[in-house]
Amino acid sequence: MSAAAAAELIEPGHTVAISGFASAGTPKALIPALAERIHRVRGTGTNFTINLLTGASVSTETERLLSEIDGVALRMPYQSEATARRNINSGRMDYVDIHLSHVAQQVWEGYYGEVDVAVVEIAGITEDGELIPSASIGNNKTWLDVAHKVILEVNSWVPAEMTGIHDVYYETALPPHRKPIPLRAVSDRIGQPTLRVDMDKVVAIVETNARDSASPLTMPDAVSQAIAAHVLDFFSYEVAAGRLPAGSLLPLQSGVGNVANAVLQGLDAGPFKGLTCYSEVIQDGMLHLIKHGTVEYASATSLALSDAGIDELVDNIDFYRKHIVLRPQEISNHPELVRRLGIIAMNGMLEADIYGNVNSTHVMGTKIMNGIGGSGDFTRNGYLSMFMSPSTAKGGAISSIVPMVPHVDHTEHDVQVIVTEQGLADLRGLSPRKRSRVVIERCAHPDFKDQLLDYVGRAEASPTPGNTPHLLGEALAFHQRYLDTGSMAVR
Amino acid sequence: MSAAAAAELIEPGHTVAISGFASAGTPKALIPALAERIHRVRGTGTNFTINLLTGASVSTETERLLSEIDGVALRMPYQSEATARRNINSGRMDYVDIHLSHVAQQVWEGYYGEVDVAVVEIAGITEDGELIPSASIGNNKTWLDVAHKVILEVNSWVPAEMTGIHDVYYETALPPHRKPIPLRAVSDRIGQPTLRVDMDKVVAIVETNARDSASPLTMPDAVSQAIAAHVLDFFSYEVAAGRLPAGSLLPLQSGVGNVANAVLQGLDAGPFKGLTCYSEVIQDGMLHLIKHGTVEYASATSLALSDAGIDELVDNIDFYRKHIVLRPQEISNHPELVRRLGIIAMNGMLEADIYGNVNSTHVMGTKIMNGIGGSGDFTRNGYLSMFMSPSTAKGGAISSIVPMVPHVDHTEHDVQVIVTEQGLADLRGLSPRKRSRVVIERCAHPDFKDQLLDYVGRAEASPTPGNTPHLLGEALAFHQRYLDTGSMAVR
Repeated sequence: MSAAAAAELIEPGHTVAISGFASAGTPKALIPALAERIHRVRGTGTNFTINLLTGASVSTETERLLSEIDGVALRMPYQSEATARRNINSGRMDYVDIHLSHVAQQVWEGYYGEVDVAVVEIAGITEDGELIPSASIGNNKTWLDVAHKVILEVNSWVPAEMTGIHDVYYETALPPHRKPIPLRAVSDRIGQPTLRVDMDKVVAIVETNARDSASPLTMPDAVSQAIAAHVLDFFSYEVAAGRLPAGSLLPLQSGVGNVANAVLQGLDAGPFKGLTCYSEVIQDGMLHLIKHGTVEYASATSLALSDAGIDELVDNIDFYRKHIVLRPQEISNHPELVRRLGIIAMNGMLEADIYGNVNSTHVMGTKIMNGIGGSGDFTRNGYLSMFMSPSTAKGGAISSIVPMVPHVDHTEHDVQVIVTEQGLADLRGLSPRKRSRVVIERCAHPDFKDQLLDYVGRAEASPTPGNTPHLLGEALAFHQRYLDTGSMAVR
Repeated sequence: MSAAAAAELIEPGHTVAISGFASAGTPKALIPALAERIHRVRGTGTNFTINLLTGASVSTETERLLSEIDGVALRMPYQSEATARRNINSGRMDYVDIHLSHVAQQVWEGYYGEVDVAVVEIAGITEDGELIPSASIGNNKTWLDVAHKVILEVNSWVPAEMTGIHDVYYETALPPHRKPIPLRAVSDRIGQPTLRVDMDKVVAIVETNARDSASPLTMPDAVSQAIAAHVLDFFSYEVAAGRLPAGSLLPLQSGVGNVANAVLQGLDAGPFKGLTCYSEVIQDGMLHLIKHGTVEYASATSLALSDAGIDELVDNIDFYRKHIVLRPQEISNHPELVRRLGIIAMNGMLEADIYGNVNSTHVMGTKIMNGIGGSGDFTRNGYLSMFMSPSTAKGGAISSIVPMVPHVDHTEHDVQVIVTEQGLADLRGLSPRKRSRVVIERCAHPDFKDQLLDYVGRAEASPTPGNTPHLLGEALAFHQRYLDTGSMAVR
């Protein structure tokens, strides 16, 4: 069927669940056709919005096309695109920002009502009628299971060599029918290579031949490299103290972006070999680490590679197949497995406060940047939780260490290590008063240290300081000053 | 050995790990003797403090004796006593307030250094040299395993009939050696009835005959009963919607206190039968529920009963043994099991903000009340998370619904349902803007509704409202006004 004809199957008010995680595996043809249909239907005087569910971020084009026409009433669970962000922050699009490990469970439970249509990109269909996944799995298993109607996009661009790299576990259930998930090591395969679908629900099959948006890798800058160096030093320190296994550490989870890439690059030059990664996204850097033997095995839910990365993978697929697996995101982020494997969680942040609370999502406490994604899944149940950021932003006008964060995504109970290019604060086993000094001394930029020390000193000197000393009238003054003057710094 | 002689084995600077959870199972003789020893040693000019690790709250006497003499330098992971609270809030005692499911792992990992001495109350010693637990297990397995020296208090008051009610799982490990925990139902027994100890480490055995401090049950007041009624209505609504199994629901976790007791009482009169509870503490009310068949099985880590409750248990031990199990707290609160079982988490709170962030610990953002305890363990990984509080405190001067909580223990990503005597706010699947209206309309006290609506209305009307509209200069004004005037209300 043509994409235009398939788009006619989506009606105003529908809840539409699509494939896509870190852009990879987003449907290529259906959404542009749907955007045209929405525009056309509105020309007849009928409003037309959908509720849009995804794995995580989908391709920029997809998010933008639908957001530019205000085509999405409710968006869940993650986005990272400018137009969508603008619509959310102006109140024109509802956004539910939840832990990625909770999505499948909550949709099954019915929090988002019925899923009318699933649009899922696949690489092909087997003779048995099962579906060969493309470059991400995300929530596709769930979408195919719960949707009333299914539209498949068969993308012939996806290299046939990828077949078999996937492991789809089908034994999840709603309570009281859950049982132990039998995964004990990052490399364990516990499922099947294909997705299942009830063919009676498949209302359209659309053929495409389009590559995923390339995920370009920027070279780490000096600040990212400094952060990475602190992280690597810390790993060596933990190994020396007997708190991490020598050589292979424990499975690493790392977000995407400059700092994460710098850490991965740093690992390649470091003393650790045979590492494992249990994370969400595999980028080009991971292929290098695998090729060099630094990483023995990587588990993820999305392959977000550059053109060169795709070539590298396909040209050496027999090698990489022994070292990579893609799983559904309910497995890649599952609390049971994150706890059992003992994940080292490394995620970026917008800011941390002096007591160790972290804001990952809301600029100045109000404007959403992207979303919490999987950072809470790994932080909350992992073995070691680390948050990383440059110590300043906006050319030094913003300090990423503040007295009180105006939005908390990760609480003081969960944040163990904070890293900036200035240094690393190890908060484990410390009371709030001890934490504040370590965070300021190790992580704050010198331009803001005196301001922070002045704040905490006066808070502690108040008549009833409390366990977590604050001056409520000043706790958010750094942020208010930035809004008023363009800088958090006292002039 | 006498308690006084045993106390001589504890030296200044020692890290001492003791039994006790919700008061039950606290050592009775050793701590008073230790307090005397500290006093005596100080008389010689030598300072003497210890670091004190427990299961959760220990007996009031224990906490008070040590706090009154400033005998504790660092306290972990939970307390609920006035003298300890005073020391923490004045900065004289360091307090590390962490999730109870994390304690064993973090102590094994070495965050708190070496554990010099464990002091563990037991009911007896078997012929094989294994230990019969008393009325709580808590972290006792971990303390016995990691401590260099062990002091046992054998309490002959503990009814012999309790033997066999415990289930101690010994297959936990540090990663990479973890495997699936084979528990699939609340009633599953996966361990052994006794605790193990290396007898070479046992440096003293002290005999006692002293009952646990009684845990008196107060009768629920009208406010608690109103909260409970909203909770029960909600359960019926969820069953009707097909989101909870009819009849037996899913395993309930509930905190302690008035509201929790009211919910349990309400359940006894309600339509649900054969319920299960997977929680931390069993109080008298639970025995009634079990006797009436409302609850089929209850799993906990502590039996905190009144004198009458103890008699009831002992007189009918053959019956209750089929319906109760006590486990180590790393199992009662384990993320893997909380997720698998699909726990309905019901916990008290100090306050919630209009976007669903919850403060469970810090009065006015600075002064600690008790601690987070296990509320995060159940909330973060459970199936349904509910927080309950009266809508006002201090005779109406404090609103428990505020624009922004000044301390976050449970984030907007994790809090699904908020309940006050005014009503119940179901936040599932809602964006922040939608949540604010539901929280204010359903949960805020009428005296504060206009103030809250005025705040959120002006925040949304700001030029750049954002996904989570706030006015940073006013976000904490409710709290500041209370500190300045004694009331959050605008006069």
